[in-house]
Amino acid sequence: MKKEIPYKIYLSENELPKQWLNLRAFMNKKPAPLLNSDTLKPMTKEELSEIFCGELVQQELDETTPYIDIPEEIRQFYKMYRPAPLVRAYCLEKALKTPAKIYYKFEGNNTSGSHKLNSAIAQAYYAKKQGLKGVTTETGAGQWGTALSMACSYFGLDCKVYMVKCSYQQKPFRREVMRTYGANVTPSPSTTTNIGKKILQDFPGTTGSLGCAISEAVEVALSSEGYRYVLGSVFNQVLLHQSIIGLETKTALDKYSVKPDTIIACAGGGSNLGGLIAPFMAEKLQGKEHYQIIAVEPASCPSLTRGKYAYDFCDTGRVCPLAKMYTLGNSFIPSANHAGGLRYHGMATTLSELYYQGLMEARTVEQTEVFKAAEQFARVEGILPAPESSHAIRVAIDEALKCKETGEEKTILFGLTGTGYFDMLAYENFHDGKMINYLPTDADLQKGFAGIPNINL
Amino acid sequence: MKKEIPYKIYLSENELPKQWLNLRAFMNKKPAPLLNSDTLKPMTKEELSEIFCGELVQQELDETTPYIDIPEEIRQFYKMYRPAPLVRAYCLEKALKTPAKIYYKFEGNNTSGSHKLNSAIAQAYYAKKQGLKGVTTETGAGQWGTALSMACSYFGLDCKVYMVKCSYQQKPFRREVMRTYGANVTPSPSTTTNIGKKILQDFPGTTGSLGCAISEAVEVALSSEGYRYVLGSVFNQVLLHQSIIGLETKTALDKYSVKPDTIIACAGGGSNLGGLIAPFMAEKLQGKEHYQIIAVEPASCPSLTRGKYAYDFCDTGRVCPLAKMYTLGNSFIPSANHAGGLRYHGMATTLSELYYQGLMEARTVEQTEVFKAAEQFARVEGILPAPESSHAIRVAIDEALKCKETGEEKTILFGLTGTGYFDMLAYENFHDGKMINYLPTDADLQKGFAGIPNINL
Repeated sequence: MKKEIPYKIYLSENELPKQWLNLRAFMNKKPAPLLNSDTLKPMTKEELSEIFCGELVQQELDETTPYIDIPEEIRQFYKMYRPAPLVRAYCLEKALKTPAKIYYKFEGNNTSGSHKLNSAIAQAYYAKKQGLKGVTTETGAGQWGTALSMACSYFGLDCKVYMVKCSYQQKPFRREVMRTYGANVTPSPSTTTNIGKKILQDFPGTTGSLGCAISEAVEVALSSEGYRYVLGSVFNQVLLHQSIIGLETKTALDKYSVKPDTIIACAGGGSNLGGLIAPFMAEKLQGKEHYQIIAVEPASCPSLTRGKYAYDFCDTGRVCPLAKMYTLGNSFIPSANHAGGLRYHGMATTLSELYYQGLMEARTVEQTEVFKAAEQFARVEGILPAPESSHAIRVAIDEALKCKETGEEKTILFGLTGTGYFDMLAYENFHDGKMINYLPTDADLQKGFAGIPNINL
Repeated sequence: MKKEIPYKIYLSENELPKQWLNLRAFMNKKPAPLLNSDTLKPMTKEELSEIFCGELVQQELDETTPYIDIPEEIRQFYKMYRPAPLVRAYCLEKALKTPAKIYYKFEGNNTSGSHKLNSAIAQAYYAKKQGLKGVTTETGAGQWGTALSMACSYFGLDCKVYMVKCSYQQKPFRREVMRTYGANVTPSPSTTTNIGKKILQDFPGTTGSLGCAISEAVEVALSSEGYRYVLGSVFNQVLLHQSIIGLETKTALDKYSVKPDTIIACAGGGSNLGGLIAPFMAEKLQGKEHYQIIAVEPASCPSLTRGKYAYDFCDTGRVCPLAKMYTLGNSFIPSANHAGGLRYHGMATTLSELYYQGLMEARTVEQTEVFKAAEQFARVEGILPAPESSHAIRVAIDEALKCKETGEEKTILFGLTGTGYFDMLAYENFHDGKMINYLPTDADLQKGFAGIPNINL
């Protein structure tokens, strides 16, 4: 007999995963390596160590170890806010009158407001272990910056955050949260770096992008003694740490013998997507299970659906190595839509390769539709979702409504990455009917593509 | 052998209380009844039914039933965000180097950001059951208003909120959250009511108070067909619903054979204090256990510590019945401190009587000290607390530091009522050194006392 499924499935603390899952170890054809932009040779451990902490470089380059131990100090911190609940969306199902069964993994019950803390604490831990003074980073929606501030404060590290200007303006209070945790926050592009000055000159009045902010943070890390750069998405190390999302989710579902048919996640740089799908994709790669996996991106920044699969710089300032990924071009600056965390020109190399191999799908959604879903969800499930997370909600609702038509009793799982408490300006625009849907024209895209370096390997 | 205590104690859904606890039933000497201000006779069921829903009136007047069933529909809703975690503050203990064991019941993991949802959903349920069109209410910090908006949206009721003007100005985004749930929000005092107009005339430029906002909301409820007034604190019905906080806490502690020595709660109108202490105070009243119970109020609004125990109006406009309580006088308008939820001139009658009988203590704290505690707590426990909640944190830390001096291994329990995501302006003031400690002078208090009606019974 099947156990009755509660509204929220909480694992106990001793069920908290002891290892992260390294998805690349399960791939026959591995993602393409990062390249040194001068030599076009794969980045070596030594080269990467100038930017990143030593142990993180090891994780970045490790393609073969399937499971990597989570240090005890990190697990202690995880216990402050994890295991995160897996929620059965009974109320949403009822409101939609769908035969589908909907589950979501909720990562918003911590002050960073999102899943970002999972990797922030790991990166801060390794930085501390290496004896560093501090770290630099970029933040889009502000969630990664907040997460890193919390993590640095916990380990007594200095934290310098470059925040994408449009988010900095839209979310004045995010800065105060970071200050509460002792961080130093600068709107990007700024005049505090050479690359920032150049970007401001080339694109006067720009509201910034993750690509710009990364360049500034990397420049500061490289030029400051005892500092390294840490980042909240795109890189393999981040996907590794975020695998805790999927691992907990799978453990919780397994307890109730539930198998998802469709797994949905929003995708900016890919940290949440890569984390949520990790153990499911591993099974899929081993041919054990079939899952439909859907990445959801904003129509205004459609790297998977309209980008090119090519080697490109991870940042606008071209300070970072080259990565083979679906990209809109490193100079592409997306419109100032309200999902700051999804405004990145590329996509994690691992996820790009999986998408290229046809192991997952991608869809775009427009922001007014996203906010309709957000509001509907908030009213029935009682959680005010972040705009980023609401991309996944939109597609989950759409899939559940399809089930209503077909009568299929699909099991839908999606990632609810965080809360929208600092996004009320976006909600206000939506309520006032002032929200615009930005759609890059083909000409816009061509302009971005023109900036992709011409590398054939 | 004692079980190891996890960081967070989560009850399972079937451990969710099935009944609320009615503290008055355990009191030999009951709190004084509400009086009709014209006749000075106890308010009858009929009189109260003009303002409140029928079943809520019954709960308001019931002094004898110790446990009252929670309707199944309300329990369903509770499952969306309850049981709430009881957290063992291992990280705070370590940071303080105290031998004390600190626990807190965290009520902030829901979109209202606080415990207020516990009573909001109950009151909306009874309003719906009675076939009403909608409800009116006041809100201070905005948490009650948000909670009620969520509850009304769930049951399809109209919701009109009068929000204390200083909070409305300090928390512009609170309004958007309420709008997301379909509520109508008006800053109080306003020109939409007679009493609002009068208050604006008598106190030009006032930033309002809970007392004013209550008057406006009651006036609108009385003059609108199919509407009743609902409220977030002070009244017995609210304390009844909030007993779920204490009941869950006690069940969780009992599981690990833990008995608190000291129980600490912030106190504005008393909803959280009354809820958290309910089962503990019941034991104390029965002589079964001794607990030290401490109510914490802001120095700027010290109803228990500097108020009078007397019959007074619950609202500035004198539309509400008379209640015997510790009061600063219904015309007392506290300074614009940052704990909007604690700016009420009186205290719940039940709690006032318990305090009068010497069954609990009260302390005042100043807001800069409160924010110091808030920041310290946020940094080690990873939760950004609301200013209201931080009053309890302040005293919990003070008590834990005393234990450090004496070596006592006290068990301290406090209520963490909510999160401060909408209070970043207050944090900003604190960070910038611009926060002022308001202390009413004796003359200020005398002015307030002068407005207390002269009733000797």
